[in-house]
Amino acid sequence: MSQAAIIDGAGFAAGLRARVAEGVTAFRERTGRAPGLAVVLVGEDPASQVYVRSKGKATAEAGMVSIEHKLPADTSQDELLTLVRALNADPAVDGILVQLPLPPQIDENAVIATIDPDKDVDGFNPVNVGRLASGLHGFVPCTPLGCLMLLKDRLGDLSGLDAVVVGRSNIVGKPMAQLLLRESCTVTIAHSRTRDLPAVIGRADIVVAAVGRPRMIKGDWLKPGATVIDVGINRVPADEPGKTRLVGDVAFDEALSVAGAITPVPKGVGPMTIAVLLRNTLVSACRRDGVPISDGL
Amino acid sequence: MSQAAIIDGAGFAAGLRARVAEGVTAFRERTGRAPGLAVVLVGEDPASQVYVRSKGKATAEAGMVSIEHKLPADTSQDELLTLVRALNADPAVDGILVQLPLPPQIDENAVIATIDPDKDVDGFNPVNVGRLASGLHGFVPCTPLGCLMLLKDRLGDLSGLDAVVVGRSNIVGKPMAQLLLRESCTVTIAHSRTRDLPAVIGRADIVVAAVGRPRMIKGDWLKPGATVIDVGINRVPADEPGKTRLVGDVAFDEALSVAGAITPVPKGVGPMTIAVLLRNTLVSACRRDGVPISDGL
Ligand SMILES: NC(=O)c1ccc[n+]([C@@H]2O[C@H](COP(=O)([O-])OP(=O)(O)OC[C@H]3O[C@@H](n4cnc5c(N)ncnc54)[C@H](OP(=O)(O)O)[C@@H]3O)[C@@H](O)[C@H]2O)c1
Ligand SMILES: NC(=O)c1ccc[n+]([C@@H]2O[C@H](COP(=O)([O-])OP(=O)(O)OC[C@H]3O[C@@H](n4cnc5c(N)ncnc54)[C@H](OP(=O)(O)O)[C@@H]3O)[C@@H](O)[C@H]2O)c1
Repeated sequence: MSQAAIIDGAGFAAGLRARVAEGVTAFRERTGRAPGLAVVLVGEDPASQVYVRSKGKATAEAGMVSIEHKLPADTSQDELLTLVRALNADPAVDGILVQLPLPPQIDENAVIATIDPDKDVDGFNPVNVGRLASGLHGFVPCTPLGCLMLLKDRLGDLSGLDAVVVGRSNIVGKPMAQLLLRESCTVTIAHSRTRDLPAVIGRADIVVAAVGRPRMIKGDWLKPGATVIDVGINRVPADEPGKTRLVGDVAFDEALSVAGAITPVPKGVGPMTIAVLLRNTLVSACRRDGVPISDGL
Repeated sequence: MSQAAIIDGAGFAAGLRARVAEGVTAFRERTGRAPGLAVVLVGEDPASQVYVRSKGKATAEAGMVSIEHKLPADTSQDELLTLVRALNADPAVDGILVQLPLPPQIDENAVIATIDPDKDVDGFNPVNVGRLASGLHGFVPCTPLGCLMLLKDRLGDLSGLDAVVVGRSNIVGKPMAQLLLRESCTVTIAHSRTRDLPAVIGRADIVVAAVGRPRMIKGDWLKPGATVIDVGINRVPADEPGKTRLVGDVAFDEALSVAGAITPVPKGVGPMTIAVLLRNTLVSACRRDGVPISDGL
């Protein structure tokens, strides 16, 4: 039996980051300034601190300016909105990312809606959500755009393929479905109320799993030869007692003998998110300064 | 063989318009003013003139103020944007509708994006498109919202049903898919690049056809008992020579013996669009004046 190809997300992300770094060099030569990404962290959530640190590091490595704003956990909504407005007005800032989740006294939707849509490199502002759904230019959320890049790299033209997205969150599932529709797939969106998930998955040429349930999607649910993008990141006990490890939403070992290609977890979709964030920030800088956007971004 | 129920869209629309009229009476008693809908028509397109006239008539019949702006076909984009901004600022205007299509010198997207999202009763502004996709309150395009009302009236809870939307336009197909997803259907979006449309349709409990091709969807493609919403309005030659008549995207006579229920064309979805436009305008007035929105809207 043939074995699925392993989609090297980590390798693709490294390549994208290298292309972004080249683009940044060209942008600096042309404009005399470096693109700037402002990241705002409210409170001390350890996972968020890790994310913010790696984003800052990757931003600097790409030759861009990283601006970090760390605010105490009891920051008021007004204080945060005032900061966001200042970043909107700051010409050195091309991208603004407010790390989620926010403390309970702050309305996330109000904060997201206040970010200038043209600096909203996360693509969460309803204006950008609407631009994506309306077929207009805007910013697309990083994780689903990264998934699409991996799919196009693997499959080329996606037109006419049957795609199933499992999960309908605002940050992964729904924008992923819009992107696949834009590529002219026949798109099905499944979720916790879907009645016969194995049957829905069984007819798909492309499966994108964004559920958050370890190894929920079984190998024998897949159509032979399907391309599987596993967005899930789930921590489970490892073989060694007391240790844990990360697995996806797809039963990877089973899927290997059925799928045509599959992303591993880790080193699949995960590394794409930051790479696309850097890409979106460079694109924002180029748009704002009227610099053409280089190929391969 | 049992015969499909005919979904009485015209009757439902009449009922909705009556409820809107009652709501308008209550709104006027409470606020001392009538809700206002401004409709802007650029040029002399005959079909658009008919639409605008019937919208104006229905608005007045519901007890609301209808404001019509008719501009010459050579109106510049700047002139139209200036008018839209004046309507945005006018406290007597609760809803703004710019009749499409616009003449070629005007960028439709620029006009739609200029309408205040909180007066955008057509729901085409990307902010409202994004609010719908993000699960936030906003205005939903009239035709798909009307289709959803007919479906819920017929089926009650839609959760877990398999729904197929044929067509992916910004005004019907895509918002329809979002609405069905919000109701927790498993939603598939099909279009001209879909490979096996009969198979896709054959598994659906709900079929919404928004294609614009007369009788394209055959009766034997349907799953027995399916609920069929036919948005298509296609003019075809009638039996009598030289005459024409309207038919939908579904082969109605064939579908009758397979479907559980189906909307006719005309008198199905068609009358819902204006009824929902009136509903959206009243809802806008209520939101703007802080008046609670009555049940049944
Ligand atoms: N950089 C990255 O790689 C990255 C980025 C973001 C997220 N993730 C990972 O991706 C996963 C999903 O993230 P998210 O933020 O989209 O999650 P989320 O907001 O929790 O959404 C999960 C979705 O899965 C659906 N679901 C839950 N149980 C299901 C079941 N039994 N069958 C079918 N669908 C089911 C839910 O349906 P309902 O809507 O009906 O509840 C929901 O739509 C998580 O593991 C997360 O860690 C990775
Ligand atoms: N009040 C009302 O009742 C109302 C309101 C609006 C529209 N309508 C009617 O509804 C229909 C659709 O309107 P619209 O504005 O959504 O039309 P549209 O913008 O022309 O979109 C038509 C959609 O149908 C798809 N399509 C075309 N041929 C197809 C085929 N052979 N198989 C599957 N899909 C196919 C197209 O796919 P691609 O995207 O791949 O091209 C497109 O997404 C029209 O008849 C219109 O008159 C009625």
